[in-house]
Amino acid sequence: MGTERVIGVDLGGTKILAGVVDADGHLETRREHPTPLDSEDALLDGLAAAVHELLDDRVAALGFGIPSTIDQRAGRAITSVNIPLAGVDLRARMAERFGMPTAIENDANAAALAEWKVGAGRGTTHMVMLTLGTGIGGGLILDGRLYRGTVGAAGELGHIVIEHDGPRCQGTCTGHGHLEAVASGHAASTAAAELFGPGADAHRLVRLANEGDARAHEVLEQIGRRLGSGLGSLVNVFDPELVVLGGGFAAAGELLLEPARSVLVREALPPGRDRVRVVRAELGTAAGVVGAGLVAFEALEAA
Amino acid sequence: MGTERVIGVDLGGTKILAGVVDADGHLETRREHPTPLDSEDALLDGLAAAVHELLDDRVAALGFGIPSTIDQRAGRAITSVNIPLAGVDLRARMAERFGMPTAIENDANAAALAEWKVGAGRGTTHMVMLTLGTGIGGGLILDGRLYRGTVGAAGELGHIVIEHDGPRCQGTCTGHGHLEAVASGHAASTAAAELFGPGADAHRLVRLANEGDARAHEVLEQIGRRLGSGLGSLVNVFDPELVVLGGGFAAAGELLLEPARSVLVREALPPGRDRVRVVRAELGTAAGVVGAGLVAFEALEAA
Repeated sequence: MGTERVIGVDLGGTKILAGVVDADGHLETRREHPTPLDSEDALLDGLAAAVHELLDDRVAALGFGIPSTIDQRAGRAITSVNIPLAGVDLRARMAERFGMPTAIENDANAAALAEWKVGAGRGTTHMVMLTLGTGIGGGLILDGRLYRGTVGAAGELGHIVIEHDGPRCQGTCTGHGHLEAVASGHAASTAAAELFGPGADAHRLVRLANEGDARAHEVLEQIGRRLGSGLGSLVNVFDPELVVLGGGFAAAGELLLEPARSVLVREALPPGRDRVRVVRAELGTAAGVVGAGLVAFEALEAA
Repeated sequence: MGTERVIGVDLGGTKILAGVVDADGHLETRREHPTPLDSEDALLDGLAAAVHELLDDRVAALGFGIPSTIDQRAGRAITSVNIPLAGVDLRARMAERFGMPTAIENDANAAALAEWKVGAGRGTTHMVMLTLGTGIGGGLILDGRLYRGTVGAAGELGHIVIEHDGPRCQGTCTGHGHLEAVASGHAASTAAAELFGPGADAHRLVRLANEGDARAHEVLEQIGRRLGSGLGSLVNVFDPELVVLGGGFAAAGELLLEPARSVLVREALPPGRDRVRVVRAELGTAAGVVGAGLVAFEALEAA
C-alpha cells in the first residue's frame, strides 16, 4: 500500500489540473492543460491524455473532480454547465479505458476532503467548506467523513436561500436569492460592472477597495454580510468545529471576512456562535487534485 | 435485552409527557403532567415525579427530550427559553437520583429519531425533519444515524436565514429572517393578529382559510412559500430521501404544503428537486416521548 499512487484530475471550465497523489494526500507531480470544450469526445480524450501523461507502474486508481452535481449511483454528472459532460458515464468510461478502480466526485466535495485530510481542517471531525469562486461550491465533513447524501448530490451550500424571492441564481439553477446569487465572485463582478462600468469585475472591486475606494468597500461589505447570513445558517445546522473558505474570491480576505464574521455572530446560536472558527483554505488550487486523488484511494480500498 | 424497558420524558413549556418505551420504540404507557415553571428545583422534582410514577423492575435507563440546544459533553441545556433549566447538570442529576444510564436530547432531535425508527421515516437513510410549532425545531438523520454535531447543538433548522436582514427571530435568538421568524406558528399568529385583531392566532387563521377567507388563505400561502425556500435549501444541502413535517402547525396541511412544494421545486437542484418526498409526521405528540426513549436505549448500550 505504501508505494501505491493514484492520479487525481480536477476538471475546470478552462483548465484540467492533474497530479500524482500518494496515500497521505501528498501531491507529487502536477500538470495543467486547457479544457477541450468542443465536444464530449474531445473532452474525454483530453481527460484521458492528462491521465496517460502521468501513468506509471505505481498508479493503481483514478479520481476525477467535476464541476457538477454528481449521481454516484450512475457514476456521472447530473447537469454540467458549460462543460459537455452531462449524462456521460464518466466513471465507467475511464475505468474501462484504463482498467483500474475509478472514482468521480463533485469538485467542491473533493476540495473539502483535501482540506480536511491535509489542509486547514486537519484533525477536525465536523467541518464545513465553502469554495467562493464564480459560483459557490460546498463540501461537508460530518462525523469524520465526506457527507454525500442519497445519490451523491449533497453539499450544494451555494444553493441555500439567503433572500426569499431574491435575485435569480446562475446558470441552470432556477432558485432565487441563493448564497451563490448574492455572495459569489459572479455577484461581485455584476456589482462592480454596475458601479464602475462594463469590464470591471470582482478582482478590480477588491483592488479598488484595498486602495481605499469607499464605494468598492461598501459593496464588498454588503456581500460579506450576506456571506455571514449563510455562515450563520450553516453553523446552526451543523454545529461544526470549523468553517473553511476557499476559492479565488476568498482572496478578498478581511474585506469580506470581517463583515461576514460580524453577521455570523448575530445569526448563529450559542455555543457555535462563540466557538466556531472561520479560516481560509490552505491548499489553494491543489485542493481539487489532491481531493480527486483521495477519492481514488477510496475506490481502491473498495475494489 | 428483549424485556428491558426505558422511560422517555418529553419536557414541554406547558406539559411533561412521560412513557415506558420498549427496544422497538413502542410506547407502552403514557402520562401527562403540567410543567412546574416556578423554579429549577420544582422543575427537577416534577421530572423526577414523572419518572417515579412509571418506574418498575424492567426499567433500565432514562431519556429526556428538552426544548433547548444541548451540550452533550456537559450533559445540559445551553440556553432554555421559558424553562428554568439553563446550566443545570440535568443528565448527571437524574442519573444520580435514579442510579441508571440517562440520556438527554434536544426535543426536535428526539422527535426526528422517533419518526425515523417507527414513524414516517422508516427505512430511510437520509431524512430531514422539521417540527413546525410556535417555533421551528429540526432533526437530521444522516447516513443512518442522528447527526448531533460537535457538542450536540446541530440540527437547528429553524434558524437558517431565509430573509437576510429580515424580521428579528424569537426569544433569545438574535438572528434576522430565520425560518422560525417567518414560517412558524408564532409567525402565523402574529400575522393573524395583525389581520383579524388581537386574540386571533394560527389556529384561527387556518380555520378561516379552510372556511374560504381569502386574506387568511393568502397569509398561509406566503408563509408556505417561505417554508418552501427553507425546504429547497435543505434539499440542496442534504440530498435527503425524505423530509418529514411534524408539530402542531403542520396540521395546516395543504394550505401550507402546496405553496411550500411549489417553491421547493423552484429552489432545489436536480435530482433532489424531482425525487425528494415531503410528508407529514406519523407519531403526533408521542414522537417526543418515543425519541427520548430511543436515546435512553443508546445510553443503555453505551453503559
